[in-house]
Amino acid sequence: MAMMKAAIFVEPGRVELADKRVPEVGPLDALIRITTTTICGTDVHILKGEYPVSRGLTIGHEPVGIIEKLGSAVSGYHEGQRVIAGAITPSGHSNACLSGCGAQCGTHSPGGWQAMGGWRFGNTIDGAQAEYLLVPDAMINLAPIPDGLTDEQVLMCPDILSTGFSGAESGGVRIGDTVAIFAQGPIGLCATAGARLMGAARIIAVEALPERAALAQAMGADHVVDFNCGDPVAAIMALTQGRGVDVAIEALGRQATFEAALRVLRPGGTLSSLGVYTEDLRIPLDAFAAGLGDHRIVTTLCPGGKERMRRLMGMIASNRIDTGRFVTHRFALDEIAHAYTVFGQQQDGVIKVAIRP
Amino acid sequence: MAMMKAAIFVEPGRVELADKRVPEVGPLDALIRITTTTICGTDVHILKGEYPVSRGLTIGHEPVGIIEKLGSAVSGYHEGQRVIAGAITPSGHSNACLSGCGAQCGTHSPGGWQAMGGWRFGNTIDGAQAEYLLVPDAMINLAPIPDGLTDEQVLMCPDILSTGFSGAESGGVRIGDTVAIFAQGPIGLCATAGARLMGAARIIAVEALPERAALAQAMGADHVVDFNCGDPVAAIMALTQGRGVDVAIEALGRQATFEAALRVLRPGGTLSSLGVYTEDLRIPLDAFAAGLGDHRIVTTLCPGGKERMRRLMGMIASNRIDTGRFVTHRFALDEIAHAYTVFGQQQDGVIKVAIRP
Amino acid sequence: MAMMKAAIFVEPGRVELADKRVPEVGPLDALIRITTTTICGTDVHILKGEYPVSRGLTIGHEPVGIIEKLGSAVSGYHEGQRVIAGAITPSGHSNACLSGCGAQCGTHSPGGWQAMGGWRFGNTIDGAQAEYLLVPDAMINLAPIPDGLTDEQVLMCPDILSTGFSGAESGGVRIGDTVAIFAQGPIGLCATAGARLMGAARIIAVEALPERAALAQAMGADHVVDFNCGDPVAAIMALTQGRGVDVAIEALGRQATFEAALRVLRPGGTLSSLGVYTEDLRIPLDAFAAGLGDHRIVTTLCPGGKERMRRLMGMIASNRIDTGRFVTHRFALDEIAHAYTVFGQQQDGVIKVAIRP
Amino acid sequence: MAMMKAAIFVEPGRVELADKRVPEVGPLDALIRITTTTICGTDVHILKGEYPVSRGLTIGHEPVGIIEKLGSAVSGYHEGQRVIAGAITPSGHSNACLSGCGAQCGTHSPGGWQAMGGWRFGNTIDGAQAEYLLVPDAMINLAPIPDGLTDEQVLMCPDILSTGFSGAESGGVRIGDTVAIFAQGPIGLCATAGARLMGAARIIAVEALPERAALAQAMGADHVVDFNCGDPVAAIMALTQGRGVDVAIEALGRQATFEAALRVLRPGGTLSSLGVYTEDLRIPLDAFAAGLGDHRIVTTLCPGGKERMRRLMGMIASNRIDTGRFVTHRFALDEIAHAYTVFGQQQDGVIKVAIRP
Repeated sequence: MAMMKAAIFVEPGRVELADKRVPEVGPLDALIRITTTTICGTDVHILKGEYPVSRGLTIGHEPVGIIEKLGSAVSGYHEGQRVIAGAITPSGHSNACLSGCGAQCGTHSPGGWQAMGGWRFGNTIDGAQAEYLLVPDAMINLAPIPDGLTDEQVLMCPDILSTGFSGAESGGVRIGDTVAIFAQGPIGLCATAGARLMGAARIIAVEALPERAALAQAMGADHVVDFNCGDPVAAIMALTQGRGVDVAIEALGRQATFEAALRVLRPGGTLSSLGVYTEDLRIPLDAFAAGLGDHRIVTTLCPGGKERMRRLMGMIASNRIDTGRFVTHRFALDEIAHAYTVFGQQQDGVIKVAIRP
Repeated sequence: MAMMKAAIFVEPGRVELADKRVPEVGPLDALIRITTTTICGTDVHILKGEYPVSRGLTIGHEPVGIIEKLGSAVSGYHEGQRVIAGAITPSGHSNACLSGCGAQCGTHSPGGWQAMGGWRFGNTIDGAQAEYLLVPDAMINLAPIPDGLTDEQVLMCPDILSTGFSGAESGGVRIGDTVAIFAQGPIGLCATAGARLMGAARIIAVEALPERAALAQAMGADHVVDFNCGDPVAAIMALTQGRGVDVAIEALGRQATFEAALRVLRPGGTLSSLGVYTEDLRIPLDAFAAGLGDHRIVTTLCPGGKERMRRLMGMIASNRIDTGRFVTHRFALDEIAHAYTVFGQQQDGVIKVAIRP
Repeated sequence: MAMMKAAIFVEPGRVELADKRVPEVGPLDALIRITTTTICGTDVHILKGEYPVSRGLTIGHEPVGIIEKLGSAVSGYHEGQRVIAGAITPSGHSNACLSGCGAQCGTHSPGGWQAMGGWRFGNTIDGAQAEYLLVPDAMINLAPIPDGLTDEQVLMCPDILSTGFSGAESGGVRIGDTVAIFAQGPIGLCATAGARLMGAARIIAVEALPERAALAQAMGADHVVDFNCGDPVAAIMALTQGRGVDVAIEALGRQATFEAALRVLRPGGTLSSLGVYTEDLRIPLDAFAAGLGDHRIVTTLCPGGKERMRRLMGMIASNRIDTGRFVTHRFALDEIAHAYTVFGQQQDGVIKVAIRP
Repeated sequence: MAMMKAAIFVEPGRVELADKRVPEVGPLDALIRITTTTICGTDVHILKGEYPVSRGLTIGHEPVGIIEKLGSAVSGYHEGQRVIAGAITPSGHSNACLSGCGAQCGTHSPGGWQAMGGWRFGNTIDGAQAEYLLVPDAMINLAPIPDGLTDEQVLMCPDILSTGFSGAESGGVRIGDTVAIFAQGPIGLCATAGARLMGAARIIAVEALPERAALAQAMGADHVVDFNCGDPVAAIMALTQGRGVDVAIEALGRQATFEAALRVLRPGGTLSSLGVYTEDLRIPLDAFAAGLGDHRIVTTLCPGGKERMRRLMGMIASNRIDTGRFVTHRFALDEIAHAYTVFGQQQDGVIKVAIRP
């Protein structure tokens, strides 16, 4: 019985490397040998015990690897193929999936919908921070990596890039729009890039860290507002001559940024929210025009599935965006505890880490 | 100089009939002789001082009448023509109007947008509870009444029907959806009718008053949940076997209904909000899946303009909906103070009143 | 080795009952015992040799039945369950499926798309006019029948109702629209019902047969234009006071109806085409405003998958539409040759037949 | 009575400079002193007599100028202001306008719609190739030029840029799409830029002239297919590994390009047509999957109105696109006959000309 190393959640504050069995491959599954993975802000929440998962679960939801073994009912792939899978792995057969909303996939839930049901890796099943990963519903989820792309070039596709772009997509950014993006972590940076790629005429990023501000401009921001240098709402209203923005994207998950996003929105605009919140949100009456401002508030969970991954990797292959540059630090899987420290505490200008088993 | 009777806001608690000059007609205006108008819930807020307007302003935004005089630059109409105008009177030339969002029309505002800027009658200019009404931007706003329709048949088009339908429209109701509508006042009833007209498979109305519950069923509700007989959220979840609804429409303007609408929504669903709120709203973290449930919250202010009115009157002319039945009480303009009492206090099973100068 | 009766394509002009083996059940499949099926216009094309299929193929794509056996990897169903499957059976894992377009599913095609690739029953694999039917990708395609609905009540869901509704859906019918539907065969009748269910204010059906004209009115048409009593384009333009229609639905598959649909369309309108054409189409320059009329021409192949079927059956369960009434004739499977004659030659006022093994 | 020079249509083959009265300014109009204008391919059609206009009409629909005089009912502008107006000048008050389709504006037509009714300059009223231009419905149509932009920088906004972008917009280009654009004249070049700005992953332009091929790459094309070097359909299918494109944009107006656009389209894709056709179009049965391929064919007439112009100029001000480079030749208004020769015969590598009164 083959064994492997895996980073597991032990208890709040402890993610440790442990020995686990290499998983059995069911008929619809694929076993992937992980070549590169990374740590997400959500993993840090798990580490801290802020988001509950089972003790002993392998963490991580951003896999790049090589097909080791295919389930008996899986066709269309071959062993040895380089692939990624999305952070969200829809089953393909829930009613949510068949409605185009695989992130809320609920194969055993009432009506086939379950909130966040598509998020399985490192949440409800073992994840990607390990030597091997079992990918369920492989024909839905395995996306071959185009020739010529490195692991690090596609490492952001499973979550960061898919989520970030979805912020602009769900916001309905149109040619000529003015867009504000609150927070320029990896997801906010990809939201900025998404707004630029969808044709925004003016992009205003909100960020205080200088290295992130610089990356925001590289991703397409025309202006970066430092929230430590005054009220960002006032700054954005001034930049837009009092008009406000057509689309505001929240990429942090706090009341302050949610509220600011609403306050800079013109009537009839869209607040596209990507953040993971940790407390109830408040909608101020005045910012909401008492409910009469034709406002839209939309939330989006990272779209998954192989077609999404194919499209994202196509953008990288065509040099529309370079997310490989987000990898500022590299670690072996053995060093993952240290990697969590560096990433979780935002040490040393880290944007994203690459973990290599 | 011709004079007329008009119901004006005197001070909180007092709307009274007063003598005013018949307005001068500018080049883009039309003067309408009001034949029938009504009182809206918003007017009651104004009466109570909950929504501030200038003292002396004529109240009311739901006009049915006859063209008395056309501005010098107005073509395409003739004096004596029976017309309505929407509660919302977009200018047609603001940037908001040209973006299809005339309710937020801001002709003198930054970028051409202003929250609720399209609402002028009885808000920023004299309204319809008078013998005569000046309609600005007449070529945008005057909609001829099809032959054969009575004043009362079209009386709900300017606000109630346009707003109610927009709740279903902005919710994106599709064939086969399950829809819940919270509160069955006149607007909620029209939202129920709108959901039915857009193809909802199951419609659940929430209402406690028996006469409104009966009307809800007449408008297309399959079930009516009485919130006095238990938690409406639990009732709706039971009716949907735990699945929740695809679209939830809020038609009251309270935290309780807003929150309940969110709680019955399936992941990926849309909360379409019509209510006028009077305090900050709270989004409970759990009902919002921490921001990861692919939820949409959309608000809509009554769409106006003559094309909207034409379409709504077409629905009445084709017997798709009968809103004339909402008129339960009739008053002369002289009796308007009494009409406010009956309507504002929901006396005598009133749904809507007709006021005739 | 179990045997069964099946209606197979022998050669042009001959569909005959034959003995075939009951299919083997693969891991993702389900075997259905057919309790009711029907004949589609497309089957008549196959019979005539106008649409080519392999000799020996079992015909038919409209199954109602009972689960006899489930594949080893299929969960969420149980043997003995009453189910339907759509005429179109998407795999769920093609790129087309993951883009919400399972009708063009291409699991082995470039990029995962194939024109009509989702249509398998009675086209590329054995179909439903048999005692047993093998349903591929069962978890995507099997839809349980709600309690209380008979076979005949749901018999139109797999194709006729799904296709007909999609004509209105792809046309984007909105509350207040005027819609024309060309031809009132079973699909056109469902398109008429779909337009009504989506809120059309005026519906004009084009049909010459009196019994179909009567059904069109029962399905929601306000007017029926008999194309034998004059030019239907002129009639529709007269009915709309020269304005034309917002949406025109083609449900026959001929140049004459396609062209008429375009000619009655207002600028900016949508021609939603459902017909199966048999020759090149011509777009007249004048009807197309030389390409400057903001026209849209959209085609739709019957949407499939279990979620679609669930929604359609929900409409029947809620009494939004009664397609059971389309069944005018009933035959045993043994009588299928006769059934083809009656249906194919439109004898005896037939709308649809029910075939019972 | 002031006189001016204007380029008028005399008879097929003759556009000549003539003396005309400076127009009277009605209450809703504005008089613009033209500082720069240009010649469009449509003007060449008019010159040749292929598109009929009244004899004596002033040609041209692409105005850049300075407000000379405002109508008595026009507010929000001031004389001396630098402005443009779209080639299409919607009235703002037709039912088409109020439905968001001002290009089909029909103020005096049945129902308020008229094919191409929004195109007035140089078609139904005097146009822009003159010293002065009367702009109707000025508050809808006058768009102030942002500080710092030159006449030539904004000269493409009224028609070329608005039309070209609309090809990508109506095509619904999404992040990750593959897009083909047929013909790289000024409009095709802007369509290419639009596809790039909306996030296309791969852009294939079809063009034979080397200078246009080079511009296509500058505008964002990844590949340029020369239709003189083999069948462009085969070339595009090879470039896409047999998959075809998600969106195909036709920017020439010929059967050959229309048909090729359809043939390279994947099932479920959109053919976005911008061309002005001169004969009936043919849809080949096989390229159309007999009507079962979920294809969409959409046509778009240049969107106009001041909000559209504002957004387009915003894109130029933000350096998202540089259409000033399209101006390859400059002429005085006196030289306009020569300018027509150079532009109409595509002499000397001309892309667009600037005409200065």
